[in-house]
Amino acid sequence: MTEPQRYTIAGLEAFLESALLAGGADVPSANAAIRAMMHASIIGVDSHGVRLLPYYLGVLASGEVNGHPQIEVSHGAGSTAVLDADGAIGHYACYRAMEVAVDIARGQGVGAVTIKHMSHMGAAGAYAKWAAEQGFIGMLVANSDAAVRLFDGRDAFHGTSPIAIGAPVPGQRPWLMDMATSAIPQNRVLLYRSLGLTLPQNVAVDEKGLHTTDPHAARTLSPVGGEQGYKGAALAGLVEILSSPLTGMSLSTELVPMYGKPSTGAPRDMGGFALAINPAAFIGTEVYGAIITRYLANIRAAVPAEGATGQPMAPGDREWKVEDERRVKGVPVDPDSEKAFAELAEKYGLTLPAKA
Amino acid sequence: MTEPQRYTIAGLEAFLESALLAGGADVPSANAAIRAMMHASIIGVDSHGVRLLPYYLGVLASGEVNGHPQIEVSHGAGSTAVLDADGAIGHYACYRAMEVAVDIARGQGVGAVTIKHMSHMGAAGAYAKWAAEQGFIGMLVANSDAAVRLFDGRDAFHGTSPIAIGAPVPGQRPWLMDMATSAIPQNRVLLYRSLGLTLPQNVAVDEKGLHTTDPHAARTLSPVGGEQGYKGAALAGLVEILSSPLTGMSLSTELVPMYGKPSTGAPRDMGGFALAINPAAFIGTEVYGAIITRYLANIRAAVPAEGATGQPMAPGDREWKVEDERRVKGVPVDPDSEKAFAELAEKYGLTLPAKA
Repeated sequence: MTEPQRYTIAGLEAFLESALLAGGADVPSANAAIRAMMHASIIGVDSHGVRLLPYYLGVLASGEVNGHPQIEVSHGAGSTAVLDADGAIGHYACYRAMEVAVDIARGQGVGAVTIKHMSHMGAAGAYAKWAAEQGFIGMLVANSDAAVRLFDGRDAFHGTSPIAIGAPVPGQRPWLMDMATSAIPQNRVLLYRSLGLTLPQNVAVDEKGLHTTDPHAARTLSPVGGEQGYKGAALAGLVEILSSPLTGMSLSTELVPMYGKPSTGAPRDMGGFALAINPAAFIGTEVYGAIITRYLANIRAAVPAEGATGQPMAPGDREWKVEDERRVKGVPVDPDSEKAFAELAEKYGLTLPAKA
Repeated sequence: MTEPQRYTIAGLEAFLESALLAGGADVPSANAAIRAMMHASIIGVDSHGVRLLPYYLGVLASGEVNGHPQIEVSHGAGSTAVLDADGAIGHYACYRAMEVAVDIARGQGVGAVTIKHMSHMGAAGAYAKWAAEQGFIGMLVANSDAAVRLFDGRDAFHGTSPIAIGAPVPGQRPWLMDMATSAIPQNRVLLYRSLGLTLPQNVAVDEKGLHTTDPHAARTLSPVGGEQGYKGAALAGLVEILSSPLTGMSLSTELVPMYGKPSTGAPRDMGGFALAINPAAFIGTEVYGAIITRYLANIRAAVPAEGATGQPMAPGDREWKVEDERRVKGVPVDPDSEKAFAELAEKYGLTLPAKA
């Protein structure tokens, strides 16, 4: 495998902006999508980064995503709100939902917002990270079209059902967990096809439900946990319950697929859920800050196991290392995406991003 | 391995009650402990069931658990409360915390309660199940003394850090997930020692951090997820953040151990967190109920993978099957616990539970 070409962050941002605006997104939609895609690309979650630009342009063009949405927020009982995204690109819907959740939690201690009628929102960690940067513990979940089997099941049943949670740490980048409840993200299977890599063991099955490491034979992902895959499936169930029964939106099995057939323009009507918790409303920020600081220091000082690949890390630490490197050296872009970018530049008359 | 002797549910309840009252628990503490232990024993979570009675009597006797606690609830901003358990047995603290969370969520849509100064609370699912039975999505987490290594780590760092979530299903027993974020519960290691069973692969390590299947050599549990064990460790981190930094209580590494040395009488000062979400405050119970009913029906009708051990199940389904059987045939008790029960009966002059 060849080392992919790197591009500057500013160059990618400018390219994304010109492409999204040319492709029919309004400024708030484009800004949110750029923030979230660049979050992913800068911290190394390439599966959810700039490589998804052609997908988003496709669904904007078909009308599946509404490029000029009128997002409506209805405040309900005490600490709740319902956000109707009006078919918005998921990034815009999720940043707005988390803003509302944080606003509520500022006064009420907790804020919970269900999200209706949105589309794919990329890396869920973007929104949890933003909440943590405001001083709140933030959680964001959303379902997506079925790609992951049940434990003991053969066929796709749940979305990759990410759970993203961020927690503030005084003077540091947040504790940030952003995990697919599948054993591997679906977008990584596509990325591995493009890069010619082999999948890890026990992360995907073929059409009979038998394990495979060939990304081209992989038909359905397995839930995280291996022999304890019922735990991954239960976590996916949590995401599903908060995203569908609690919002009134479709179950994963009922959603318009993200890939695999041309977009018909029918909205995906995805659901999601944002929660914010204000540490000041419980123990106070000083005690909270002191303990979480001690906790992270303990993780980073823990003794490695014999044969471990490295020093134990806190959730996010691996990503912050990548961020530090990419902010200096630029963001690598895989060959398939480079080709797609060149086609987009041709189609819309755009300037390609600057190489790093 | 011999089939363990079974006892009647009423007989076990009567025995637990007489033992706990003789051992220094007040009636509310005893009642909560009985409810939670019997929840676990009836659904087959034997590691957290009646076999823990001798442990609870030991910590009541030493003063580590306060048998006559004055639990105080301080309502904070909008949807929050802080519960000071005054050293109560964890079952009492957790049922109270979930009651408060549900009460808040009834009016505010969401209720969040931090729990301070409690002790071991058994199976976290007991409290989530209760919330679901009231019509709320309930979550309960609590940390505990370190028993699980970090991903790449050698030594115990997090508690088994259970995450329990229950969701109501109209006319059915709830969707109920109660998962240790370790690959196996610590109590199951002890149970397997008693029963002479071998551990599964990749669930525990020895003193060097190398995997072992011998429950006697197992020194530290691994986080759930195998090669994706960083996900299990992150989930444990979520439990830790909600239980310690958010409550002001100790980190798992700082807690008085549950086992391994005689109780000194020092309180364990564990923390925990209860959350309740009211579906009526978002989409309404009718739509919620219809979708979750459809969701569970889909799970139970899903096609099994080739080589699967059985029909895919929803979280809780395995437990409800065990419940149906045990309500008829009685609850099996492992030999070590039978011996301990006989010693307790001798010590306190109790009647042994009736055999089924």
